[in-house]
This record gives sequence, C-alpha cells and structure tokens, in this order.
Amino acid sequence: MKLLLKVAFDGASFHGFQAQPSDRTVQGVLTETFSSLFGEKMNVTGCSRTDSGVHAEFFALTVEPEAAREGWLKIPPEKFHRAANDVLPGDISVLGAFIVNDDGFHPRYSVVSKEYVYRIEDAAAPSPFLRGRVCHTRRPLADADVSRMNEAAKGFVGRHDFSSFMAAGSKITDPVREVYTAEVARRGGLVEFTVSANGFLYNMVRIMAGTLIDVAEGRLTPSDIPAVIERRDRAAAGATLPPDGLYLHGVKYPFEPVWLAE
Amino acid sequence: MKLLLKVAFDGASFHGFQAQPSDRTVQGVLTETFSSLFGEKMNVTGCSRTDSGVHAEFFALTVEPEAAREGWLKIPPEKFHRAANDVLPGDISVLGAFIVNDDGFHPRYSVVSKEYVYRIEDAAAPSPFLRGRVCHTRRPLADADVSRMNEAAKGFVGRHDFSSFMAAGSKITDPVREVYTAEVARRGGLVEFTVSANGFLYNMVRIMAGTLIDVAEGRLTPSDIPAVIERRDRAAAGATLPPDGLYLHGVKYPFEPVWLAE
Repeated sequence: MKLLLKVAFDGASFHGFQAQPSDRTVQGVLTETFSSLFGEKMNVTGCSRTDSGVHAEFFALTVEPEAAREGWLKIPPEKFHRAANDVLPGDISVLGAFIVNDDGFHPRYSVVSKEYVYRIEDAAAPSPFLRGRVCHTRRPLADADVSRMNEAAKGFVGRHDFSSFMAAGSKITDPVREVYTAEVARRGGLVEFTVSANGFLYNMVRIMAGTLIDVAEGRLTPSDIPAVIERRDRAAAGATLPPDGLYLHGVKYPFEPVWLAE
Repeated sequence: MKLLLKVAFDGASFHGFQAQPSDRTVQGVLTETFSSLFGEKMNVTGCSRTDSGVHAEFFALTVEPEAAREGWLKIPPEKFHRAANDVLPGDISVLGAFIVNDDGFHPRYSVVSKEYVYRIEDAAAPSPFLRGRVCHTRRPLADADVSRMNEAAKGFVGRHDFSSFMAAGSKITDPVREVYTAEVARRGGLVEFTVSANGFLYNMVRIMAGTLIDVAEGRLTPSDIPAVIERRDRAAAGATLPPDGLYLHGVKYPFEPVWLAE
C-alpha cells in the first residue's frame, strides 16, 4: 500500500525535485517532513524530475515507509493534506491523497500522460506579482502572433523523434515521444503554451516554447516545424526558455484517482 | 514640474513605503534607483505610508530632483517606465508616468479617494503561489457567509468617526473618514473585501477585514456594524488581519492622469 499525493509547489526556492546532499529540493523537504510526521524514515518517489525553478500546479508522488508494511498509515487519507500542510513550508502544498493498493504502481513509470504549461508575460511593465513565475518579454505578442504560435504548436502533435527538442548531452537512448495535444492561447493577460504527451525529453517544453517565440518573431513559420523535427538536431530548434515560465499542470495514470481532501 | 508615476510592488520584501536608515523600503529603493538613473539626488514622495508586507497594484508617487528646476526630465514620460523597469528590482514595477505642472500638487495631500482590496484564501490546501499575498483561513467561507460579510461591509459606508477601526496608539487627531464604497465578493477562488474612502486610518482596512471575519464566523451580525462604529473603541471591532492580504488598488486625484506607457 502506497499513499499517492497530489502536490503543488512554487519552484523558485527549490533546486528541482530530486534530493541532493546540500541543496533544498522538493523530495528532500517532503522526505524530511513526512519522516518527522510519521516518526520513521519515509520514501518519497516523484512522477518527474523537475529542474530548478520549475513549478508544479499538479505533481504526483508516492509516500511509504522505508520499512514498508501494511497498516502504516495512521492518518486517514482524507485528512492527510491538513496534517501535512500544517507542517510543510509555504512554497509546497498537499492538495489531495489517494491510497494505491497495486504494488506494481510507480508514480513515474506508471504515467500515461503529463501536461505542462509554459507561461509568457509580454508587457513593458512586468508585474511584480509574476516575477519568477513567467518568462517575461517586452515585445508585445499580437493576436496574429499568438495565432501563428498556435498553428506551429499543432506541428508538435503526433509520435516523433524529438531529438531537436532535447537538451544537448542528454543520455536518453529513445528520443521518440507522442505528443497528444499542443496549443497556444492568451489567458488572463499571459500567453500560454499547453502541451500533453506520453513523456517529455530533457528541456523539451522549454525548447518548444523557445521555438514558438521564433515563430512569433518571424524567424520560423508554422510550416517549418515538421522540418525542424525531421532534422533531429538540437541546433534546428529555438532557444531553451528559462524555467520560470514552466509548470507541470497534470499527470494521468491508467486509473482515475479520487483525490481525498475534505 | 513633477513626474507622477503609477507603480506596483510586492510588499513581502519591503519594510513598507517610507524610507528607513537600515531597512529595505519602497521609497528607499526608488530614491536610490532614480537618483542613479538621473545622475542627481531625486526626491520620491508617495501617496500613502504602507506597512511592511502590504502590496500595491496601483500606488502613486512623484519624482523630482532635489535641486528642482524646469527641464530636468531628459527621458520622455511615455518611455520612462521602460528605462525604470530595466534597472528596478523585480518586486517593483513602473506602470505609467504623467507630468504634473501644478506646483501645489502633492501625491498624498491631493488624494480625492483611495481604494484597497483585502484578499482572503479559504482553503485546506493553501496555494504555494499565493503565500504572502493573501490572508489564509482553513475555514471555508460559504456563499451565505460571503453574503453576510457583504451586507456588513455596507455598514461601513458613509461619513463616520472610525476610531473603532484605528490601531490603538495612533496619533491621528481627526478620526472621521468618509467611506464611499465597500463590498465583499468571491473572485477567482478568493474572497475579496474592496473599500474606497477619502482616507484611511492606521490599520483601518485590516481591522475592517477582521471584523468581517467575525461576521462570517457568527460572532457579529451585519446589523451590529453601526453599533461597533458608534462605540469609537478599538476593542469593539475585530482582529487586525495580517498585511499579506492587503493591496492598495487605486488612487484618485482631482484630475484624471493620462498614464503614458507605450
């Protein structure tokens, strides 16, 4: 039995998800907090490695005692978020919990699809309330630019070798991923690129977003995207945009968890 | 001639507006930045003293050289926000500029009305993206609670002695203010108390918000508000809510500035 949690975090003060000996990480903070809450060493396993500065509105992870055994969960799952949020720092929050009885379940390997959002603020006066939470550009994105970005994003959809959209030096042997949906739209003053796939290569969304900026600024046209993918060369795609604008937005598993949070 | 600016700031890392010898303040940061930008000592005068942690979505202030003279503004006002935002820290932003030729104008004493918003997040799982920017309560506010808070807020409207809503120990001699509008509504998942007046006493909005929480939680009814005002006693009103949820939201002058920001 594992406890599956849905959490949100502001990535600005975390050196990514994965625990590191000396830096503050999401896994490190959660392991320490939950071990203290349960009075024994807990293992925390995430759905994704996220980079420094990347945010999550919906990140999934499992919690179980290192000395795994049945009946360890003394806190009812529907009350777990309250107990956890009482002791967690303010930049991370447990949104809900769900008990998984399938021993084969793994929060990362069992993922069916994930969705990311990349947020761009195009304003001469950047909002102080969005710093570290968007990629800021002074150049205003006109409706026509957003429309071309959206058209270009459609070119990502499908099963492709995404080597052009993978950070140089990545050690991934199979760069084929299937993108299910991709769109660009203006929402609440920001331009948002939303993309879902069965998996993502290292920096894939940030490079896709940089390539869409090339489309907005006329260095590429929407019809160039298939050729950029076909090249299988990092140099064919655009810049890697900063982590600030990137949010993990959803994770899907073969089952639909009923998130308990009273 | 003075340059009137509209600025926004995230108050979390400022010890309020007013310059202090050793703490980081809005006035301190702006004086230093503008003096450096113009190459001479600039005077920065604000529309309000705000407390540590209080935010502004619309704060008005004037800038002029200490050695005041005509023709000092070498940067066109419509470009000033760009020049300023290039050098300002990320938690403060210039939204627009306007030239005031009336020598008698003072950003504080010329105010006709100001509007504040107090934001409350009622959620068992506080959003990590709102920490420091809302007052968080675990107790959910039902539609009926919000409706009663709104009804109570209407009791603030009018010209009253607001001594009950003034921090104990304030040295203000005339505690009479005229509240023009006051309402409570749920917006975007938050409960917002919006209030405009010709002026505000020290902590007035935060005490009003605390009193509205008393109404939500049944310790007061909406019809008690006139009596709470009538008592002219700080002890009659509710708690002073934390600064985190408070935003200066607008400032009105006898004229309507045409904010220049290309």
